[in-house]
Amino acid sequence: MTIITILGAGAMGTALTTPLARNEQEMRLWGTELDVALLAEMRARQPHRRLGVPVDPRVRLYDPDDLPAALSGAEVVGLAITSDGVISILQRAAPHLRPGQPLVMVTKGFGRDASGRMSLLPPLLTATLSASLRQRCPIVAVGGPCKANEVAAGWPLATVYGCDDTATVARCQRLFQTDQYRILPTDDVVGLEMAAALKNAYVIALGICDGLEQASGHPWHNLKAAIFPQAVAEMARLAQMLGGRGETVSGLAGAGDLQVTALSGRNRLLGERVGRGEPVAEALEAMRRAEQTVEGVAAVYSGVELLAQLAADGQVAVEDYPLLGAIRAILDGTSNIVERLADAVLPHRGTPIQ
Amino acid sequence: MTIITILGAGAMGTALTTPLARNEQEMRLWGTELDVALLAEMRARQPHRRLGVPVDPRVRLYDPDDLPAALSGAEVVGLAITSDGVISILQRAAPHLRPGQPLVMVTKGFGRDASGRMSLLPPLLTATLSASLRQRCPIVAVGGPCKANEVAAGWPLATVYGCDDTATVARCQRLFQTDQYRILPTDDVVGLEMAAALKNAYVIALGICDGLEQASGHPWHNLKAAIFPQAVAEMARLAQMLGGRGETVSGLAGAGDLQVTALSGRNRLLGERVGRGEPVAEALEAMRRAEQTVEGVAAVYSGVELLAQLAADGQVAVEDYPLLGAIRAILDGTSNIVERLADAVLPHRGTPIQ
Repeated sequence: MTIITILGAGAMGTALTTPLARNEQEMRLWGTELDVALLAEMRARQPHRRLGVPVDPRVRLYDPDDLPAALSGAEVVGLAITSDGVISILQRAAPHLRPGQPLVMVTKGFGRDASGRMSLLPPLLTATLSASLRQRCPIVAVGGPCKANEVAAGWPLATVYGCDDTATVARCQRLFQTDQYRILPTDDVVGLEMAAALKNAYVIALGICDGLEQASGHPWHNLKAAIFPQAVAEMARLAQMLGGRGETVSGLAGAGDLQVTALSGRNRLLGERVGRGEPVAEALEAMRRAEQTVEGVAAVYSGVELLAQLAADGQVAVEDYPLLGAIRAILDGTSNIVERLADAVLPHRGTPIQ
Repeated sequence: MTIITILGAGAMGTALTTPLARNEQEMRLWGTELDVALLAEMRARQPHRRLGVPVDPRVRLYDPDDLPAALSGAEVVGLAITSDGVISILQRAAPHLRPGQPLVMVTKGFGRDASGRMSLLPPLLTATLSASLRQRCPIVAVGGPCKANEVAAGWPLATVYGCDDTATVARCQRLFQTDQYRILPTDDVVGLEMAAALKNAYVIALGICDGLEQASGHPWHNLKAAIFPQAVAEMARLAQMLGGRGETVSGLAGAGDLQVTALSGRNRLLGERVGRGEPVAEALEAMRRAEQTVEGVAAVYSGVELLAQLAADGQVAVEDYPLLGAIRAILDGTSNIVERLADAVLPHRGTPIQ
């Protein structure tokens, strides 16, 4: 039996044990200090509070202090930690990792490198590992339309696994896939991760249209539908600037993930509140009180900062990303929300023939 | 003042008078024999029953018998007739058309050419016109995410106008666009029309996921989100086979139009009913009784027939269009709906690296 250890007992980390337990690997789930209550509930066979279903009884649960034991003998390690915590957890885990162990990362977002520049996560994780390990501990990025509650429940879905080491991604595909949990392997880590990180930013604009509809009593479907391909186009363009491929973003990893993110979730909910007319600061405060983390806000500002970095290097033109700019202006408190979105996504008068 | 005549006083024909009246052209709206009640209601200043708003008072209304007067002196003619009626109306109008008059066609769908082969509409319209007129009566196809009720209400939206004569499409862009009704001009008529016709087929699958959710009480968002990029990919592939461009379909004309079609409408509603477990024949019968035309059913069978034609010529491989095949099987009454959809859109075990 292959031993697989997932670090992080939140929604996605725990959800991943469903397909893995079906594959009859030895599944281990380690919880951080933030997961202690979740671990206790799982041990008591209660449903995971963020998934609505109990964990498979074959999954072995590990407390925060038991990280070395959780990792001992593991062939693959899953990283299911929030983006602001993933580097520090990886630092804790590093002494117990072995060269060659794939690190399957479901964390999405941006971080800063040693020089303070904005970066996608995989290179930051690689830099965190020791030099000896770095060459042989490949990062496998996970994206695509893959909500945790449906993974846990075992409904059919397509996810995308990305790694520049094609043998590693093929191996993880074999180990993790089931009849329900299907894996599209890719070597385009940049396209996959750019879409995974930025869709949380762009979905705010789609949520705003839902909020406009709720407030006005009439649909804003045409504007919402015009936002969608512009969001995909901007994510694809930025991925291409960093060496990724447009097809990755127009497929499951981008259009698919943006689609699922627009159907539910907190980032969309922030947009809804703003579209209904709630000031951004009040909406964020209300969601903070309800313990609803809105990752999309950080994604907007990180994306804008990344664009500014690349523009300073002469690599991109910021005006090629008008929708991201409009969402940033809305988060900054601009009052003419509809005009900003329309100006960003609708063809201008006299747009030339495409 | 430019005289513009719209043929067809249904939802989209009437809606188009909103931007045009704002542009202060002389707007004429001609109704077919099927539109007599609608015309009477509009003359009585009642809201158009399918739009919820009254027509602009500057619009001149013409009865079925007044076709010659409606067309007299018109510089542009709009065709807003259902796909099964557009050829016969064009035959009636042809003696009153002048060479050079652009025909702006909002009708979407397929038809048969003289040899009985399945075809997109623009070449069929061109063939309907007399030989003398044919060279100089360009067809301008209209697509993109553009629901009629929002056009009529004047909410912001992006539509796509396509014509291989670029001067004509640029002229129509100038005549028709307003601050709210923005037009993306393209010379890719095939990409635009393929998406406009086939999105009504593919949206049935998205509606099925909504129905599965209603019946089961849990979301099927991951499957729905996996269907979306597969639908866009199949529409793009088929458009490319006929000389269109993939970018047209992945933009407003395809992804955008599919998105808006998935937010409301009868084709989605058919999918919802089927997803909830209603047999297809019963769902269609109930919708027929409620006078809800489901264009998507004809689009599925026309699309399948077009594929078969092209496959017989060795131009396409039918297995490259698994989602259209699955939708057809579902309409034919297959019982394992979820398995068919999952098999069509999820990566198979061992899918190679992309």
